[in-house]
This record gives sequence, C-alpha cells and structure tokens, in this order.
Amino acid sequence: MSRYLDRIEVPKDLKMLSKKELSELCGEIRELMITRLGATGGHIGSNLGMIEATVALHYVFDSPVDQIIFDVSHQCYTHKLLTGRKSAYLDPEEYDSVSGFTNPAESEHDIFSIGHTSTAISLASGLAKSRDLKGEKNNVIAVVGDGALSGGEALEGLNNAATLGSNLIIVINDNDMSIAENHGGLYQNLRLLRETGGTAECNLFRALGLDYCFIRNGNNINTVIDVLSRIKHINHPIVVHMCTMKGYGYLLAERNKENWHYKDPFDVGTGKVLLKTETHDTYENLTRDFLVEKMQKDSTIVAITAGTPKIFGFDENLRKQYSKQFVDVGIAEEHAIAMASGIAKNGGKPVFGVSSSFLQRAYDQLSQDLALNHSPAVILVFFAGISQGSQTHMGIFDIALAINIPNLIYLAPTCKEEYFHMLEWGLEQNENSVMIRVPGIVATSRNVALLSSYSQPVQYEVVEQGRKVAILALGKFFSLGKGVKDRLEEATGIKATLINPRYITGVDVELLEQLKENHQLVIILEDGVIDGGFGEKIARYYGCSSMKVLNFGARKEFVDWVTVEEQYEKYHLTVEQIVSDIFYELKSPDFPETC
Amino acid sequence: MSRYLDRIEVPKDLKMLSKKELSELCGEIRELMITRLGATGGHIGSNLGMIEATVALHYVFDSPVDQIIFDVSHQCYTHKLLTGRKSAYLDPEEYDSVSGFTNPAESEHDIFSIGHTSTAISLASGLAKSRDLKGEKNNVIAVVGDGALSGGEALEGLNNAATLGSNLIIVINDNDMSIAENHGGLYQNLRLLRETGGTAECNLFRALGLDYCFIRNGNNINTVIDVLSRIKHINHPIVVHMCTMKGYGYLLAERNKENWHYKDPFDVGTGKVLLKTETHDTYENLTRDFLVEKMQKDSTIVAITAGTPKIFGFDENLRKQYSKQFVDVGIAEEHAIAMASGIAKNGGKPVFGVSSSFLQRAYDQLSQDLALNHSPAVILVFFAGISQGSQTHMGIFDIALAINIPNLIYLAPTCKEEYFHMLEWGLEQNENSVMIRVPGIVATSRNVALLSSYSQPVQYEVVEQGRKVAILALGKFFSLGKGVKDRLEEATGIKATLINPRYITGVDVELLEQLKENHQLVIILEDGVIDGGFGEKIARYYGCSSMKVLNFGARKEFVDWVTVEEQYEKYHLTVEQIVSDIFYELKSPDFPETC
Repeated sequence: MSRYLDRIEVPKDLKMLSKKELSELCGEIRELMITRLGATGGHIGSNLGMIEATVALHYVFDSPVDQIIFDVSHQCYTHKLLTGRKSAYLDPEEYDSVSGFTNPAESEHDIFSIGHTSTAISLASGLAKSRDLKGEKNNVIAVVGDGALSGGEALEGLNNAATLGSNLIIVINDNDMSIAENHGGLYQNLRLLRETGGTAECNLFRALGLDYCFIRNGNNINTVIDVLSRIKHINHPIVVHMCTMKGYGYLLAERNKENWHYKDPFDVGTGKVLLKTETHDTYENLTRDFLVEKMQKDSTIVAITAGTPKIFGFDENLRKQYSKQFVDVGIAEEHAIAMASGIAKNGGKPVFGVSSSFLQRAYDQLSQDLALNHSPAVILVFFAGISQGSQTHMGIFDIALAINIPNLIYLAPTCKEEYFHMLEWGLEQNENSVMIRVPGIVATSRNVALLSSYSQPVQYEVVEQGRKVAILALGKFFSLGKGVKDRLEEATGIKATLINPRYITGVDVELLEQLKENHQLVIILEDGVIDGGFGEKIARYYGCSSMKVLNFGARKEFVDWVTVEEQYEKYHLTVEQIVSDIFYELKSPDFPETC
Repeated sequence: MSRYLDRIEVPKDLKMLSKKELSELCGEIRELMITRLGATGGHIGSNLGMIEATVALHYVFDSPVDQIIFDVSHQCYTHKLLTGRKSAYLDPEEYDSVSGFTNPAESEHDIFSIGHTSTAISLASGLAKSRDLKGEKNNVIAVVGDGALSGGEALEGLNNAATLGSNLIIVINDNDMSIAENHGGLYQNLRLLRETGGTAECNLFRALGLDYCFIRNGNNINTVIDVLSRIKHINHPIVVHMCTMKGYGYLLAERNKENWHYKDPFDVGTGKVLLKTETHDTYENLTRDFLVEKMQKDSTIVAITAGTPKIFGFDENLRKQYSKQFVDVGIAEEHAIAMASGIAKNGGKPVFGVSSSFLQRAYDQLSQDLALNHSPAVILVFFAGISQGSQTHMGIFDIALAINIPNLIYLAPTCKEEYFHMLEWGLEQNENSVMIRVPGIVATSRNVALLSSYSQPVQYEVVEQGRKVAILALGKFFSLGKGVKDRLEEATGIKATLINPRYITGVDVELLEQLKENHQLVIILEDGVIDGGFGEKIARYYGCSSMKVLNFGARKEFVDWVTVEEQYEKYHLTVEQIVSDIFYELKSPDFPETC
C-alpha cells in the first residue's frame, strides 16, 4: 500500500523518486492522512491541501540546511511525515508521539514552536538576516496561508522582508479561506491575482516591495517543483503566490471547508464525528442565542470576531442573516479591539468574543485603544484556564495580561446565571471597558447572588459564612472551592467561608478586613497562572497583617498536551491536595493558635 | 499680528474667511506655532507640515459632528488651536493648559486619547460602523502619517476599512519620514505614487481594496480644500494620499527633519536647544559606544530598533556605517521581536532597544515568538519607571507585562557597571531570552557585586546585612532603598538589610528563607506598577509565614503629565514616607515583638 512512502525516511530520499512517483507518493500520503485524521482528528483542510506543495518543498530544498518555517504550523503533517516522524502517522500506537504543530524538541527540521498565526515571515526574516551575517548560503522559506495575511505581524513582516536584500522565499498558500471565509480588502486583490494568473498590475506583494511569482495549481506537484527549482537560491526576497484547494482529495472536506478546517475524530466514509457528546447547553450556544435575541431588539449591538466566528456559535447562516451586526475582521485582534473601542465611543454596543490565547495579540490595544479611553465595549474571553492543548494555545495567561492594566473591569462569573447577568450589565452600562471570563465549555447553574451593577466598589459574594479558613474560589474554580470546603469540613470539622470574588480586577477591602476577625487563613483558587494574577493581590493586601494566604493556580510555564488531570495534580489543584495543604498550614508553627 | 486668528473661536468661524484669508491664517498659525514651540518644545516637524491640511479639514468638515481622528495625535496642535484652545498657544501663561496629544477631557473635538501610533484607522472604522448602525450620516476622517503605516494595527485597519462599505476618509499625510527615515517595501510604493502623481497601477491602497486619490501639495490649502470638498460625504472608504513637507516653513526643521521631529525648548533664530544639560554619561550614549565596539569585533551582533534609532544613540552616520548590523524595522515592534528571535535562533546576536511603553505592542511576540522558543535575544527596555509624560507613554507597565510570561529572564541593574555586565552576559549566553531594564537616563556608578552568570538559580545581592527590616530595592530604586536604609537607622537605630534583587523574574528562595531568621518586615521598592509586579511575588512567597511584607510602587492608573515628585508623593515613594510607613508597621499590634 505504501509503495513509495516506505522508501522515505529523510527528505533527501525524495530525490530518488521520479516526478510520477512523487505524484503517487502524494496519493499515498493523502490516503494515510485521511485514515489517521479520522482516528485522531486534527486540521484536515490545510493539511490535505498542502500535501503536494510540502513534498515539492522537501524535494527541491535540503532541510534542515534550508530552513522551512510553517506559519501557524497546523499544516505541517506532511512535513513531519517526511522528516523522520512517519510512524506517528502510520502506527496507531504512535499517533500521540508528535504534536499537531512544529516543535524543535521533535526534530531538527522544526525550527520553531509555532501555533499563533502570522509570525512566519518575521521569524524567517530573522533566520535569513543571521545567515547573511554569518556568510552562509542556505535558503529560508516561510510558508504562510492566505488567512494569516490579515494579521498585523504578517503585514509588518512582508513590509520589512522587502528590505532584506537576500534570499527569502515566502510561499503564500492561497486556498481562499481562513478558518471561515476571509475578510478584508486584500482578499479582493488575491482574487484578482488568481483570476489574472498573477499578471494584474495592482499587486499587494509588489506594492510592498517584493518580487512575485504565481502558481495556478499548487496541488500539481510538477508545477510546484518547477517553480521552486527555478527560484532556489534566489538572491532576494520573493513571494510565491500558490493556489491550493483546502481539503483537496477528500470530497467532504472540499465541499464544506469551514467545517473541515479542524475536526474531532470522524468516520472517514460518512464524515460523521465519532463520540460526539451532544449538548446544547454550552456557553457557545447560549451566548449565540443571547446575542441573536439582543441584536433583534437593538440594532446597535455588534458581535465581533477575529477569524473565529464559531467561538460564540455564529455559523455561516447566522453570519449572513446578521451581516450588519456581525463583524469578522479576519485574524486581526488588534483591529478588533480598536474597532470595538470606536463602536462603543459612538454609542454602539460591541461584544468581542476571543479565546484567551489570542487575546494576547492585542495587549496594547486593550490598554491604549480601549481602557485608556474608558470605551464601554464588552470582551468575552473563551477557553480560559488550564486545558489540554498545545503549548502555543494555553488559556492561563489572560488574567495576568489584563488585570494589571488600569480602567478595565474583568469579571469571573461562576455559572450561566451570573455570566449572562454580567453580560447584560456590560451591554447596558456605558462607562466601563468590561471583560468577562467565560466559565468553561458546558454551562453550569447555581443559585447565585447577583449584583445590580458591577461598577466599583468591588463586592465579593459570601456564599457560605464560616470561620478560620476563607476560600476565594474564582470563576470556574468556584466548584473546586465548594469541593474543598465540603471536604475540609468532613476531614477536620472546620466550616470554612466560601467566597465567589466575582471580580478579577479589584479587592473587596471591606470583606477582607472582616475576615480578619475570625479567619486565619485565606486560600485563593484561580484557574490561571498565579504570577501576576488575582491571588497575588490578596497576598499583598494581607502582607502586613497576621492573616495567612495560600495561592493556588497554574505555574508559570509552557505546557504541551498534558492532560488537565495531570496539571491539576502537579499544581496541587485537586480537592485532596488543597485540603492537605490547608491542614499543613493550620498545623505549622507559624500558624497562630488564637481564634 | 493675528488678524485672522483673532476671528477663529470654533472651526465653523473658518467658513467666514476667503481662500486667500485662510492661506494668510496658516501663515499666522505657523509664526505663532514656531514661537510657542521655541518656548515649550514639542513635535515640530509634523505640526508645521500639517497646518494647511488641518485648517482645510476644519474648513471643509463640521467637527465635532464630523469626527477627525489623528493617529499618534502628535500633529494635533493646529487642531487644538482651531477648536477652542487658542490661548494655550497664544498666552505663555496658558501653555501648560493643553497636552501635546488629543484628549477628550479637553474638548469634544478630541474623540480619543491617542499617543501610540497606527491606531487611528481602526478606531475610525469603529466610529463609522457605529454611525451606520445608528443611521447617522456624518463623515469620519482618520489622519495618519506615512511612518505609522508600517505598524501592524494600521495595516490590519486598512485591510478591514475596505469592507466597511460606507463613509470613511483616510488621509495619509505622506511627508516621506517616520521619526527617522522610513523602512520597508511599502515606502517604495509611496515613492512611486508620489512620482507618478498617484497614477501608478501598482498601488498599495488599491491592493488593499480601497479607493484612492492623490494630493501633490498638501501644504497648498486650496488644493486640499478642493479635494476634501469633493469627497465630503463620499459613500465608501477612500484614501487621500497627501504629500506634505515635515517642518514646512521653518527652514531649520525642513533641512534636518529627524532632529526636528521633537525638540526641547529652543532659540527660534538659531535653533539651538535652550538649557541643554550636556552629559555624555547617559545610558543612550554608553549603550551606543558599547554596541559599536561589540559590532566591530563580532559581525553577528545586530542592533534592532522599531523606528526609534536614537534610543541607543544611533544617529544617521552610525546607521549608515553599520548598515548591515543595524536594523530599523520602522514602527513594527511585533516584527522586531519575531525577527530578533529568528536571528538568535540561527546564532546571531540581536539586541532590540525599545521604550517601555512601546514594548506593549509586542506582548504576543515576547511570549510566542521569543520566550516559548528560548531564543537568546537581548531586549533593552529604556524609559522604564515613573516619569513625567503623557498618559499614553507611561513607563510603568513593562514589569507586569513581561515577568508573568514563562522563560524570560528580566534583569534590573542598579548602576552602569551592573548594566553592562548583564548586557555582556546576555550577548555571550545562548540559552535564555534576556530583557534588561535600563536604570534611568543618566548613568550612575557603584561598587556592585557581579554574578558570573544570570542563568538560574536566582541570586539577589545582599549589599548591607542588617536585621529586623529588609529592603528589596529593585533596579533604579536601589538608591531610594539606600536612602531609606540610612534614614531608618538615623531615625530609629534599626540597621536594615539592603538588597539588590538583580532579577525581576524569580525569587531567591534561599535568601528569603534566611531573612526569616532575624527579620520581621520586608519592604519592596519597585519603579513600576505594583499590580502584577515583582513585589507581589515576594508578598505571595511570605503569604504563609509570619514575615510582614510592604509593597511600594506606582498605583495602577493612567497619569497625564504629573511631575515625578508629585507621583512619588502620592505613591508614598519618598524616603520620609517609606520610613514613616515602616515605623507605623513596626508599631502596629499585628507586628510580633520577637527578635
């Protein structure tokens, strides 16, 4: 079955194959890939589209001497397969041995760990600059999807690449899609270039000072090899504008590109996702329903996404139906937040939905465009907290990122009732820039005490009044706090006070002072990195009192595909560990015996 | 003397003047502006270049119904002068009554507080979107300098503006300069457009999907009025590419545009800066000398700037002399850090010099492109700490921004010996991404204990061993710590321990444990926002011990042009206040009597 693939251990083995054999190799890889992705899930569309081009790249260039940088790197499966990691695609027992992104820990053919979009051109420019200073002669190749071009870093990179004056090959893999459809004026130009075979005079890349060539069919390996061979060792930067088809060779994926951008394990015959736990009560769906209802009543409400419209459930139909009130800015978080600020400043009601990891791309806009201007926009932060995923997509940094910026109010609801109440308030008020940390995937419910307003002063919710130990359980970790409270009582008889802080920004001074009366230990449970987070403010507050403070949360480190359970265990975030840590402190000689 | 200006109180008064009178008004404003800027200093070049265009904008449009957003807003002096703030330019006693940037607190004609570059297009897009949803019909105008176009947010904004489908006028003020010369391929295209009168087929703005028109002489008010009148109420986004001369009408500024971008108070006749305190022993100059010496010995050392080459002293001559080893990426901090990561990854030695405030523009690149990849680049952070300046350019946020990202080592030297030792180490090592916080403007010297390596484990310097109170005085605040130590001894007889932490990232656990033996109070002095900073880690560390911790630093707030002394006073950062706070804690009932 794998007649040619069997012969490929390292990229240079490709050079033994004829063009025809290379083409058949691509067929083998495609078949294998579909089977493997059916079993494991993954980024289907981009990987199926990039098989021929990746084989061509490794045929023409000599990795790792020639350096290939994949933008986002979610299209790197064929690259991994050709660079000594074949078994991770062939052998079900080894499926887990590689990640879905490039990773220098896996192979010398992976130069960087990459997962965020739009970075490859800048990274490659640096490699090329270093090469030039050392007087070396290798090729540096950045492979960038058209969807990534809307990101500021990619545009900064293109603009600067033009000044490099030496070899740099920027392959633009134009499959006419981002995760969803592309947005922005530059895509009109890509279309014009596709339609004119790259000959249109008005050319974005040339306007950015770059040389340019065009490949009409990037799924034809011979064409790609011909073009790349011609420009190998070119002495200046060039853009290779290459058209491919997302999902190529798997009809279901070709036909519905957005749904097949990323897929959980699926049946290859029917395309149906296996083991799907159907629940409608997700924050995604509930937020969508909430926003749609609001939009119908108020034409100034605008939902904004930066290339991930399904984060709050807006599928293609809904996007069309609410096209005036739904804005996808493409991968452009900086623009998204600045635009939200502008909308809010003129009296509109913007709601920007973004994942914790991608919020990082707009720190300065949060600070300067939004918070400094007190613009009453609402930002919903999804996928926040400890999760099992790539080290490039961690959700634990949003708190430290946002809460140390002035003027922002960052709220941590503990359940859906509180979440929607806060969201409702965020839309109604017009004085504060409000962020809300979506508490997980599946909505939970509890009998929560709501505030009429979340403007200052900060007021925490005392859910159960106890003594000796107070548990500040933030957002999604409220249930963990409840578990700790119950177990602590069971184990020691101590009835702890259980508190929902509601606010990630701000300290409820009055309550913290009250706690001093009959509490000796405050613990903080925070689903994020402890450093720079919520709990450190509490520790600082009590710095000169005799109150003891114990912080729980994630350690400051990058973590790659470790299960949530393992991380909880490592960070002492299980009920048993927390109770044990409390017990240890209560027994310590440092602990006062009073009360 | 101010024959026409006397008649202008609000923008609509301009409509009473004939074209000829408007032109004479511009002359009056120019004369007035030069006198005023001679006395106060300010952004000379951009303001002199924009007088005619600003008068034209306010003549044609009806601010504040029509909304004009100035990018960076350092070119807004004529705007302020025409919108009810004339006395701040005419009357020396009122010079201080307005800031150098737009500010909604000053006038309804200022929509946003703006000081960072490349934001106006996105902010204006939001205003326009909100206008459309509300069914209103005003014009929205973004005024953007050519230098700002290299920034990712501006390019994201242009790309998205094209999809707005309604009125948005983007005036590109092309004076063929950033602060220094422009860098990047797009500037070749601007030149081509200038040379062809805007008729070249290859057009960056059209390639981004935007309509386009060209103004050859933006210093001719009649031309500008004609074009703007024609496109007023246009029903789609358009770029007005307008050429002006930076420094127009003041010969000295026309001739040396970089030096006259911003100027301290100067003699109008000679152009000489008044009251210049000449010192060569600045970190700017010393860093320049250090880098030049290194570059001569090692061809792989690269100094990188994002549009502010003089931050470490590279003037035009030096830039030319070291053109291979000096890279100005234009205003593009994201690209700068990603490129530095690439250079380091291939064995080069990048040193990126950036001001604290602009580092904010590259949080994600610090995290994903640099730290995650352990790229051994060096970042020098200038202008960090509390300063008297615009709320848009504060230097207190870099610590909270950077130290909560994994893998980074952020060092805080206390004097020039330590600074250059750390910089030297940063260049020699090849395992860590290293940041160094430049300790002020003028270099200071002391007898410091240096480490052979600043890799982990973290090791603080105990400068003076004492008891009861330990003072952790970070970086530039070391001298403050020394002052507190001396005054405390004088006032109370307590000999405190004085510590230079060296590291902003990381806790010297061994030392902090030792301190428990004969200290009861640790104070931390930090020249940055306390929230998310260094001191909170110390407070957390001691959270469950009986050690008391008191944090000193800046409050989390935006502060506009308040003197350093006033801020110190407000934040309890004077020697007397700190000693008094220590004394208060030592007397408090919470404080243990032991030791």
